[in-house]
Amino acid sequence: MPQPSTHAISTPALLIDESIFSANIARMNDCMARLGVPLRPHLKTVKNIELARLMLRGHPGGATVSTLAEADYFFQAGLDDLTYAVGISPGRFDAVASRLHDGLSLTLILDHPDTARALGDYARRKSIDFQVLIELDADGDRAGLGPDSPELLETAELLRAHRLGLRGVLVHAGGSYGCRSSAELTAMAERERQAAVGAAGRLRAQGHAIDVVSVGSTPTALFAERLDGVTEVRAGVYSCMDLVMAGLGVCSVDDIAISVLTEVIGHRPATGELLIDAGWMALSRDRGTAGHAQDQGYGLVRDAQGGPMNPELIVRATNQEHGIVAARSGASIPLKRFPIGSRLRILPNHACATAAQFERLISIGDELNVLPRCRGWG
Amino acid sequence: MPQPSTHAISTPALLIDESIFSANIARMNDCMARLGVPLRPHLKTVKNIELARLMLRGHPGGATVSTLAEADYFFQAGLDDLTYAVGISPGRFDAVASRLHDGLSLTLILDHPDTARALGDYARRKSIDFQVLIELDADGDRAGLGPDSPELLETAELLRAHRLGLRGVLVHAGGSYGCRSSAELTAMAERERQAAVGAAGRLRAQGHAIDVVSVGSTPTALFAERLDGVTEVRAGVYSCMDLVMAGLGVCSVDDIAISVLTEVIGHRPATGELLIDAGWMALSRDRGTAGHAQDQGYGLVRDAQGGPMNPELIVRATNQEHGIVAARSGASIPLKRFPIGSRLRILPNHACATAAQFERLISIGDELNVLPRCRGWG
Repeated sequence: MPQPSTHAISTPALLIDESIFSANIARMNDCMARLGVPLRPHLKTVKNIELARLMLRGHPGGATVSTLAEADYFFQAGLDDLTYAVGISPGRFDAVASRLHDGLSLTLILDHPDTARALGDYARRKSIDFQVLIELDADGDRAGLGPDSPELLETAELLRAHRLGLRGVLVHAGGSYGCRSSAELTAMAERERQAAVGAAGRLRAQGHAIDVVSVGSTPTALFAERLDGVTEVRAGVYSCMDLVMAGLGVCSVDDIAISVLTEVIGHRPATGELLIDAGWMALSRDRGTAGHAQDQGYGLVRDAQGGPMNPELIVRATNQEHGIVAARSGASIPLKRFPIGSRLRILPNHACATAAQFERLISIGDELNVLPRCRGWG
Repeated sequence: MPQPSTHAISTPALLIDESIFSANIARMNDCMARLGVPLRPHLKTVKNIELARLMLRGHPGGATVSTLAEADYFFQAGLDDLTYAVGISPGRFDAVASRLHDGLSLTLILDHPDTARALGDYARRKSIDFQVLIELDADGDRAGLGPDSPELLETAELLRAHRLGLRGVLVHAGGSYGCRSSAELTAMAERERQAAVGAAGRLRAQGHAIDVVSVGSTPTALFAERLDGVTEVRAGVYSCMDLVMAGLGVCSVDDIAISVLTEVIGHRPATGELLIDAGWMALSRDRGTAGHAQDQGYGLVRDAQGGPMNPELIVRATNQEHGIVAARSGASIPLKRFPIGSRLRILPNHACATAAQFERLISIGDELNVLPRCRGWG
């Protein structure tokens, strides 16, 4: 069935192709069914409840968020079991306490004995029960305690001493974005699994009841060969996919469900390029494919219906509200094929970053649905 | 007088230092007074009416916007003379017409005979008077017709034939961001001026009444030696300044009025780095200083009051909600000086891009004021 016309949509606009989105979800669900582990989907990419519900179908119902604004939005929409997967710090203790008081089950993560102490003191002073995961580091990429470090046991002991609820461990192999083959991705997934399962074992040996062994990133989730000992997988971008994922070999460009609808607003005859109304304000400044074998500039151009272009065009440069579209080959674009007022879709480098530029999205299935997105930090 | 405490502000937050902001405005106003040309400030950086009013003081009252959402927001706040400085295209004709109908004086720009024809046909069909500037290209950077091109006169004739109101010409020397010395900036300012004044002269010679000769960018505005023949200057980032401007020698880092308040949420003992709660969601993905003599990463770190740090720290890397702060020298940061929960301010590469990540800002003077920012495209 042909898609409904996007002609009446004012540009730039964030589009989600429902059939591709659903196919991406089915692929991840098949993968999880084979591995025998449920998803706790990360909702920081979509930031919308209708799309979140599609991701949650067939899973226990818990989800992952990156801000308290997301927590508030999804809690209001009925999701009451959320993991706030950014290290908690003292400036947010009051804000978390008020969400717990409202009935949200919000699990926190931390990776420093000082944070455990500060949270413990706060919990005692305010008589609040916090649920905590210890964040682990599998790859030196960002945050987390080493699974073999003395600080892991020290932090767990501090949590116990302060009567904080240690529920388990959490790891995110952000280093998977640096992998360049499926073998490397599979190895990274196993490294992520071993970090989590190994740390859980050490903690259990010290008498801690560890119920949650949480791993995840889209590349490791899709390339894991086994997840024994893991209790949940967190992933989010798998639903939308993007050029970074395609560049890693995690998907093809045809699997990208997210795009920015844009209008041609000018021609650059001297260089054979197009001006479009999607600048970095719409596409974001993300250049995540800059280090890839194929640099996609600020995005890969598709036609107004989402179909491939020949020759291939990319967004070469952006200003705040202008994009410059060039042929990948450097040849002049036949400008007459793209009259002023014609429409294109841009596949983004990074779904999370591009989506973050928009307050709403338009879901395209049998009809067009305008859906809100939550924003800010709360 | 010491600034009020920012302790109670939840992070990440966008801050404007009022005294620096005012000093930046005074500097530009002095410059304009010397050159004898008024400002039509560009409001795409601040996107807030209180700050816009400070920028408009002493000038005729017209302003520049980059989206119809800004036009709506500022019109509602009482600004009724706006130039929409992104080339108009057919998908927005109806939206512009409805703003004109509501009483907003919204001047459009275009740079293609086809756009002039399409707008002319639309205007006749709908019986609407549009006010138009022809966009000029001074430096091959983005959009605009060559000041000496046959298309300039052709487009003007089309506007006349269609009874569209040609008010003048507009040029933006975006190439000034590639200048590397004050001599180059001064030369670029003169090139911008000559493009505009030269094109205005050609059009007048053809019998067109040219009232508006509009130039502008912050670097060229501050480094112009003469602006004879120019009727207005557009600039916006001058009020906030940023690391890109400092890198061009347009200001010093102490002149940057805009920053992101952030909290230390973790330590990376293996690398001697800090984790902060300002990732690219707060700072943006802008890496505008990457090609400068001094690469500032994702931002330069200052203390919680905005003072300089010793040793110098920068945001080396970002994820969605995490930043990694490293010493510029590569040495380990003494982590005990930055306990978890301590606060820092980050000066951004690009004020417009960082501000765009926030729905509100906090203006810091004698007291703290939370001010809204408009968003989206309308």
